[in-house]
Order: sequence, then structure tokens, then C-alpha cells
Amino acid sequence: MATTAATVTDICRAAREASRKLASLPTSEKDAALHAIADALEARTAEILEANARDMQAGRENGLDDALLDRLMLNEERVAAIARQVRDVAALPDPVGEVIDGSRLPNGLDVAKVRTPLGVVAVVYEARPNVTIDAAALCLKSGNAIVLRGSSSAAHSNQVLAQIAAEHAPVEGAVQILTGGDRSELKDLATQEEYVDLIVPRGGEGLKKALSEVATVPVIYAASGNCHVYVDADADLDMAVKITMNAKTQRPGVCNAAETLLVHSGIAQEFLPRVLAELREAGVEIRGDERVRAIDPTVGEATEEDFATEFLSLTLAVGVVDSVQEAIDHVNRFGSGHSEAIVTRSYEAARAFELGVDAACVYVNASTRFTDGGEFGFGAEIGNSTQKLHARGPIGLRELCSFKYVVRGDGHVRS
Amino acid sequence: MATTAATVTDICRAAREASRKLASLPTSEKDAALHAIADALEARTAEILEANARDMQAGRENGLDDALLDRLMLNEERVAAIARQVRDVAALPDPVGEVIDGSRLPNGLDVAKVRTPLGVVAVVYEARPNVTIDAAALCLKSGNAIVLRGSSSAAHSNQVLAQIAAEHAPVEGAVQILTGGDRSELKDLATQEEYVDLIVPRGGEGLKKALSEVATVPVIYAASGNCHVYVDADADLDMAVKITMNAKTQRPGVCNAAETLLVHSGIAQEFLPRVLAELREAGVEIRGDERVRAIDPTVGEATEEDFATEFLSLTLAVGVVDSVQEAIDHVNRFGSGHSEAIVTRSYEAARAFELGVDAACVYVNASTRFTDGGEFGFGAEIGNSTQKLHARGPIGLRELCSFKYVVRGDGHVRS
Repeated sequence: MATTAATVTDICRAAREASRKLASLPTSEKDAALHAIADALEARTAEILEANARDMQAGRENGLDDALLDRLMLNEERVAAIARQVRDVAALPDPVGEVIDGSRLPNGLDVAKVRTPLGVVAVVYEARPNVTIDAAALCLKSGNAIVLRGSSSAAHSNQVLAQIAAEHAPVEGAVQILTGGDRSELKDLATQEEYVDLIVPRGGEGLKKALSEVATVPVIYAASGNCHVYVDADADLDMAVKITMNAKTQRPGVCNAAETLLVHSGIAQEFLPRVLAELREAGVEIRGDERVRAIDPTVGEATEEDFATEFLSLTLAVGVVDSVQEAIDHVNRFGSGHSEAIVTRSYEAARAFELGVDAACVYVNASTRFTDGGEFGFGAEIGNSTQKLHARGPIGLRELCSFKYVVRGDGHVRS
Repeated sequence: MATTAATVTDICRAAREASRKLASLPTSEKDAALHAIADALEARTAEILEANARDMQAGRENGLDDALLDRLMLNEERVAAIARQVRDVAALPDPVGEVIDGSRLPNGLDVAKVRTPLGVVAVVYEARPNVTIDAAALCLKSGNAIVLRGSSSAAHSNQVLAQIAAEHAPVEGAVQILTGGDRSELKDLATQEEYVDLIVPRGGEGLKKALSEVATVPVIYAASGNCHVYVDADADLDMAVKITMNAKTQRPGVCNAAETLLVHSGIAQEFLPRVLAELREAGVEIRGDERVRAIDPTVGEATEEDFATEFLSLTLAVGVVDSVQEAIDHVNRFGSGHSEAIVTRSYEAARAFELGVDAACVYVNASTRFTDGGEFGFGAEIGNSTQKLHARGPIGLRELCSFKYVVRGDGHVRS
């Protein structure tokens, strides 16, 4: 059952109205609402699991694969974890009202740049029902109303979860849900520039493409990550093995995992046999360029396309370069601007890499796996951005905010 | 002569390549280039004026009105002013490399949030040829390559000006110009998301609409301003007259001029006759709501549409409200989120207005006319944004920047 265009507008307008009240709500009221949501999630676990069972059954009947069914599935433990996450968000500092910058102008006007909510944030997501609550908690804490648009495969779960969030929201109308219909609903949502300030899609490339073609509302795309580890001529090779293994194998299915290893030619002869042995031990399939295969002829061939691919699995492209500049050029050409690491003891190489690589996060002697709102001390995140405007890297509470200039005078006029 | 789609891509790719080098260029080299551009503008004034004369002649033949011809026209004085502006931009602090935020994480990783150039900025503008140089100077100073797309009516002037900027740019290819063709060129430019990081349109609503329909590259719309002055029950009425007059009449054709005056009913009887007399004296046409016309029956009627209109002329809509909350609701309903002022001696009213009004700049006891990069101490601006993402208010050098996280470790891996 699709929501009609008129309904989408009504829903977004209601969110806008709620957002006006939310914007100046005291932190204590927002936090109390989040605790009420967490309590209700626990109290109504049976109801949530019943709705989820209907989605799971439909999913099995529709032939969803095991991975998708696992993402869809809720149990008591998972519901408890969702509730815990809401309480964690409540415990974070309120970003609203923070003075980011300020000064007294020469004419005596006092200018303060103050963080404000964005207003209305729409989150479009696939499968995982926990996103319903995670996103709602982050938006409410940052003073934003939220319009949720989940996938139809999780419709029953999302409906109950969103209802719980809506019932206990600090302002009536602050949590809105679209019923998850066809692509026309997505377009209706993505063109509500009067009522929606930002859309955050959480899903695959298909969703991104569908959105980018129709959206007039600003969109921050949660990122794909084609991340690199570059092992410099001056690297500590033990450290380089450790960082490569962590970046590739600690959790290969996530966006901050490494997909390509670049090795300086000066240490390739020594380093490659060591690291390739460990990688193979961990079940990693290696695809190498010509120079890698000259050192280890058992390695399969890496094409240009392999270097451009986010494998999200235990596959790694490996290449040899002759300089840090060549590594930087490779990263800027093939990378997606997510997370890039250099391993080196050379100050000059580290500095060149930091300055030259165009990415959200540039690491020196550390694994790419640290790009994460929790790791960065943001407390929670709604995704990672590889865009350069507004939010780059983890999208936390602050990134869900805008700001305004408050200017205080004593009858100042311009001459 | 329109640029072909292939050429647009080539031009944007060349800008991207230049932007890689620009990103880590020392401030001194960027400033030297800006001074060279300023010197060349002065040295080649005759050539510039000759090209401009051709545009002026074509403009007259095509029946451009006097206002447009004046915007198009260059003379020695105006060229000298453009050169001076470039030297002013050179004198501003370099935004690139500024550490915005940073901390040591509990695990010992040092995270620095460092300002970086965006990369490639496209500026699409109408008529005024000075924008060619102003925009190029701001982009080069902030380490960005620029793609200029001016209007065909200024094609000869823009060509010479862009050529001067390109010849003296600190990196070859950093200043690119499109020849100003048809709408398909605009679409080709607006969909270069691989090579262009931001589009800033400087022009009317038609240009904005054309862009918003096709753009996949992020766009920051320089704003229209439907700005309000609200005179509270507790206002100093002398100050209220002074601020109203300044906001409406000091320069009525700009986006931070006031278009609506809201007056609290408690002082309307005393204040309205005074301010309306002064406004009429200054040639302002008044359009009032019912309660205004009850006080002064000679006032014409203000419709809903009048309250929604950015007149950009000596016309003012005037309304009476019963509370600061009613004023806030009016502003949030009809305003464009640009610049909003309250005049009051009441702490509570000032605070309610500051918190409740959703706009880039909220003024207490000061004219809306201060919303300006120069006034705010940004040195220069490329426009004013009423969007809430990335840049809100004046778009200066910092707003032409992104940032990256530089993370320094000692072999850190994630567990």
C-alpha cells in the first residue's frame, strides 16, 4: 500500500510543524522522551517480536536469502540492545545551542554562531528494523523531527517500532513514518524541499541512484568505502602486517575495511611474501598487479576494475608503487574518499600523504577501521559521509545540526 | 557557441587535476598569483574595456534595459575596483589547514579535523562581469579550482577576464571557463559529480529552478531574502523607527533589506503613525493588514501574497500581531530564512525571538542590513545562503572549504 503524494506532503508538513517546537525544547525533555522510548521498547517486546515474525514469514515466502533474513530478524536480545542504544544517545551531550564561533564586530555588534537543529530529517533505509529506532533517537536528541521510510519487507516491525517512538516523542508529530510503498513515494518525499531539510539514505547503490535522480531536497549519501593501506619504503614491517590484517580481515563487510594494499617497491620483495602468507592464512583471496605477480607468481591478476571495486569480502587487490606520490595518485584516482592509511616511519612521507590524499579520514600508522562515530567519540552515528559538503566522515549528532547567527546590538544601523 | 557535453567533462576534469595541486599549495604562492592577477587587470584595462564595449554594443542591439546595461558596463574605475578586491582577498587569512577541532582518543589516537579545499567549485552567474574575477579570487585563495559559466551577454568581457585569471593562476588549469551556451551546457555542468564538488549559482529564480531540476552536483543557492523587522511591545520606539528605516530604505534592492514590518498591538497606535510618516517621506509604498488600516485608513491592502513577496523595492508590507510568538510564527511561515530582526527592551521577548526564529541571521536591536560577509568580518563573500546544510548566511572563504580528519597513531588496530 503506497502513500499518496498528498499524504507524503501532509506527513512532511506535520513533521515541519513539530520541528518548530522541538527546536527550542530543553535537553531534559528530549532525554526524558528517549528514556520513555527505551522503556516502552522493553515493555512491548512481545508485540515487536510478533510483528517481526510476520515480516520474517513473508520474507521466507518471498525467498529472501539468509543474510537478509538475519538483518531483518529481531529477538529479545536485539530489542534490548536497541533500547540500550537509545539510552546511550540520551546520555550524549546535546549539540543544540552550542556556540561554535563568535566575536564582537568593530561596530560593537556581538555575533554568535549557534548550533541549531536542521529541522526535518528523512531517513530512507532498507531491511534492518533497528534503524527505525536508532535514527529516531539521534534525530530527536538533535532536536529534529524525523520522517522514516523503511523497506516494505520490514513494514510490520517498522510500524510497531515507529509507533512506539511516535507515542513517546517529546513533541506530537515529531516521528512520522511512510508506509514503504513504491518508487513514486520516494520521489514525493525527495521533492518536499519546503518541509524536509535533509535526506539520509541508508542502503545500496540502487537506492542512491534512485534518489540522486529525483531529489531536490539535499541528500547526504552514507558512503561506500574503497579504502587503501599504503606501506611505505620506511614502514615498520611488523606494524604494516598488523595494520593490513586488521584493515582487511577484522570485519571485511563494512565500509571502512581495506580493499587495496599498495606497497612501495623498495620493500616489496621483503614485505609482500610475509603479508601475503598471513592474508592467505586468514582466507583472503589476493589479486595482484604485474609487479606483485613477478614476486609471487601464484597471485591472480588484478584488473583496473579490481582496483576500483569495494569487495566487502575477503578479497584484496595489491599493487606496487615507486613513491608516496604514486600511492597518493592511485588513492585519489581509485578511492571513494572514505578512509586511507599510510604505514611509515618517514615524517616526509606521512606529511605528503596527509596533505595529498583527498578523503574524509587519513590515517598514519593506524588501521582504516577506526572511521566510526563511536570510535571518534561522537557516541553514535547515522552513517559515514564521503561527500565534502556539510558532513564528511561519521554523521553524528552535530552533523544532524545547522547553525544560525545571533546578532545582538543596541540600535545598530548600517551606514 | 555552446560547449559540447564532452568538452564540459574535459574542462571539469582539467579543473579536478589542477585542484589536486592547489590543495597543498603554500599560502604565499596563492597570494602571489592573486597579486599577479590584480596587476594584469590594471595593465590590460584597455583590452578589457574593448571586449566590454563589444558586449555593450550587442546588449544595446538586443534591447537590454538600462539597469542590465549598467550591470554589464565596465570602465577604468570599475576595473581598478575589481583589482583592488583581488588584493583584498589576498590579504585575508588562508582558511586551508586551519584545525577546526581535535582530540586524543582514549586509545591514544590523535584526531585533528583540518580545513581543506572543496576541490572544484563551479560558479554560474548572470551579467555582471566582475563576478568572473571576484569568484576566481575567492576560489583560488581557498585552494579550489573554479569553473566559470557566465551569461552569453557578457561573453567577451568574461573571456578576457577569465583568461587573465587563468594565465596567472597558481596552478595551470585552475581557472576554467565555459563559453556560456544553452541550457544543455548547464545540465552537463550540473551533473559532473565526479569532477565538480559544488555549484554556486548567482542569478535569479529562473536559474535556480533550472539548476534544481537537473543538478546531481551539490548546489548552494545564494538566497532571496524576505526579511522582517518586528517591533515588540517593549521596544524603544525611536530605535524601532531608526532600524525600520535602515532595513527598508538604506538599499532596498538587496537581499538583506526588510520587506515586512510587524508591530505589536500594544504599541501599534503610537508607533505606526510615526513610522508610516517617515516611510512615506522616504517614498515607501505601504501595504497594511486590516489592523494597520484601522489605524491608518489611507494605507493600501496587504494580501497574503504581499507578505510572501520579496519586493526588492520601496514597498513594505505591514502587519499587527498580539505577541512575540505570533511574530515568530509569521516570520517562520512567510520568511525565507535570511535575516530577521526584533526591536525590544524585553529580555524574554529577545530570547524567545532568538530561539524561535528559523533563519540564517537573527538580530536583536539591529538592522537586517548587516548580513554580509564584509560586515561579519569574513572579508568577502560569494553570496548568502538560506540553506541549512554546510553554509548558512554569508558564504566566505571558510564556506568554500571542506575538512578532513587526520588521525595519527603508533600502529593502532581495532579490536
